[in-house]
Amino acid sequence: MNASELGEFGLIERLASVVGAEAPTDLIVGIGDDAAAWRVGDQVLLATTDTLVDGVHFLQEFAPWADVGWKALAVNISDIAAMGGEPLFALVTLALPAETPVAVVDDLYAGLSECAHEYGVTIAGGDIVRAPQVSLTIALMGQAQMRAGEPLLMRRDGARPGDFIAVTGVLGESAAGLQCLKEGAQRSDPLVMAHLRPRPPLTTGQEAARLEFKCAIDISDGLLQDLGHVCRASDVGARIRGADIPVSHEVRRREHLNALRLACSGGEDYQLVLVGPPAKMRALEAARVPVKVIGKMFKGKPAVSFGSGPPPEVSLNASGWDHLHSG
Amino acid sequence: MNASELGEFGLIERLASVVGAEAPTDLIVGIGDDAAAWRVGDQVLLATTDTLVDGVHFLQEFAPWADVGWKALAVNISDIAAMGGEPLFALVTLALPAETPVAVVDDLYAGLSECAHEYGVTIAGGDIVRAPQVSLTIALMGQAQMRAGEPLLMRRDGARPGDFIAVTGVLGESAAGLQCLKEGAQRSDPLVMAHLRPRPPLTTGQEAARLEFKCAIDISDGLLQDLGHVCRASDVGARIRGADIPVSHEVRRREHLNALRLACSGGEDYQLVLVGPPAKMRALEAARVPVKVIGKMFKGKPAVSFGSGPPPEVSLNASGWDHLHSG
Repeated sequence: MNASELGEFGLIERLASVVGAEAPTDLIVGIGDDAAAWRVGDQVLLATTDTLVDGVHFLQEFAPWADVGWKALAVNISDIAAMGGEPLFALVTLALPAETPVAVVDDLYAGLSECAHEYGVTIAGGDIVRAPQVSLTIALMGQAQMRAGEPLLMRRDGARPGDFIAVTGVLGESAAGLQCLKEGAQRSDPLVMAHLRPRPPLTTGQEAARLEFKCAIDISDGLLQDLGHVCRASDVGARIRGADIPVSHEVRRREHLNALRLACSGGEDYQLVLVGPPAKMRALEAARVPVKVIGKMFKGKPAVSFGSGPPPEVSLNASGWDHLHSG
Repeated sequence: MNASELGEFGLIERLASVVGAEAPTDLIVGIGDDAAAWRVGDQVLLATTDTLVDGVHFLQEFAPWADVGWKALAVNISDIAAMGGEPLFALVTLALPAETPVAVVDDLYAGLSECAHEYGVTIAGGDIVRAPQVSLTIALMGQAQMRAGEPLLMRRDGARPGDFIAVTGVLGESAAGLQCLKEGAQRSDPLVMAHLRPRPPLTTGQEAARLEFKCAIDISDGLLQDLGHVCRASDVGARIRGADIPVSHEVRRREHLNALRLACSGGEDYQLVLVGPPAKMRALEAARVPVKVIGKMFKGKPAVSFGSGPPPEVSLNASGWDHLHSG
């Protein structure tokens, strides 16, 4: 069997099974959530890592290097946002061929630095290695918000039957932007920018954690797939209404794009799914935090279904993105 | 200009200059040391990252995958040892081609897990991505030892004129082991094992930090080059005696190997250079910590020189390993 047959998630489970037995009591969240969480003195530290590889996660001809730098950090900030924490400092590993022009490195750093500045992250170190293609791996450390000595964390396994499911922002713009880029659109196109420079809703995630939401995930692989992770981790079913999914008007305007499919399965939105009891959802709305309720958790098979049957244009099987299968 | 002309250290300085202005007060050690250090509540967190790339840092035909897994973590533990800290948890990013056999992944994880177990490290998460070749990037988080609210850290810039320079273990075995591997030696050869499974002297680093040594570095690129980093960071000169460098007997025994050159410039020993005043060096020896004094720091040009002229077989120019230049 090869890696792509087992898939990204199969390989992660395999790692968890090899190393899982050793978890010490300081570890609050281990393999399988958006970020690891660890008690350090009276604080709880968060750590996550994500990689962008040239030709796999971005295409050199479509993605200016500064945007690759921005995105490499932003996707990690998204993981910390999904836990409800505060991102603090990052280690940057840049792999590149020896003949890479220094201007490429400067552009990568510039975009990285812009994103770091925007979100209050400090680049504290890293590594530079030679490799056949450019890739950027970032490890981002942060802290959980604390209340009475306990971390205010949102986890994938925190959903309960009866919880409402909400999402931030609008969905599908990033995948639409990638398609437009390939069709020749420029950086001046807002969809293209949504793809190249995702802006994770960090303060929304933090606000939800302060309201003691217990469950969230970021939308990196597509709404259906990521919500499916929550279902499996929490052992609950999710029922959503296609008509309530906040589809981008900008995407809908372009008639050749399948807006609902992109919103459900496009991926790389780096918005958040927030899951919590109706009262907390109302508290979030009262705090004027912009979220949209799209469905509800119920006791049942851990999978995502559509409330009134799936909209005909969405196939539940084609739901998202496996990093080992698609490119 | 391309990346290899600027070199690994030039690129790191360039990153530091882009992001350096933003350093907040919580950051104790930023870019350019073995690990970053950050105050979190009443503790000080350490974080470091290192990557092994197939064809660059190891050669598939010579390095069993389990050994690659071990080494990927060990080289990071070495960085924490050089700071005098305790390694705690690691994030693992595995990049691999889709057609990689799952057995390769299992072997990588097994070696990683063995090293984690040996050094008390928990694998807390990570990422799996598709890439044209296998690479393993590890971000390792740890904690500094604390005394009276202050971290007991050893830094590259902590050397002072008059300090003694000592090293742990014996040097040159890893580079010798690589040469022997290429000549057909097996894993039963102790030099080959020194190359494939480095064992950073973690407790020695921690003991030195408790004795309030202020300066250390791990030997990854070769004694001369790494000691040179200390000289530049601390703005002191280093004078060492070739005859005092602890050359491996096992290497010396093989007549075709240049033992002193390998000890000075071979790299990948993952031993420590410890720098401190004579009284502290005596305290280390009194605590039966096995180190060997090889020279002294002095006020002068920040470079490494040999006490009685360089031994004829060592050229100071051929001093170590730049990850962008050599393979």
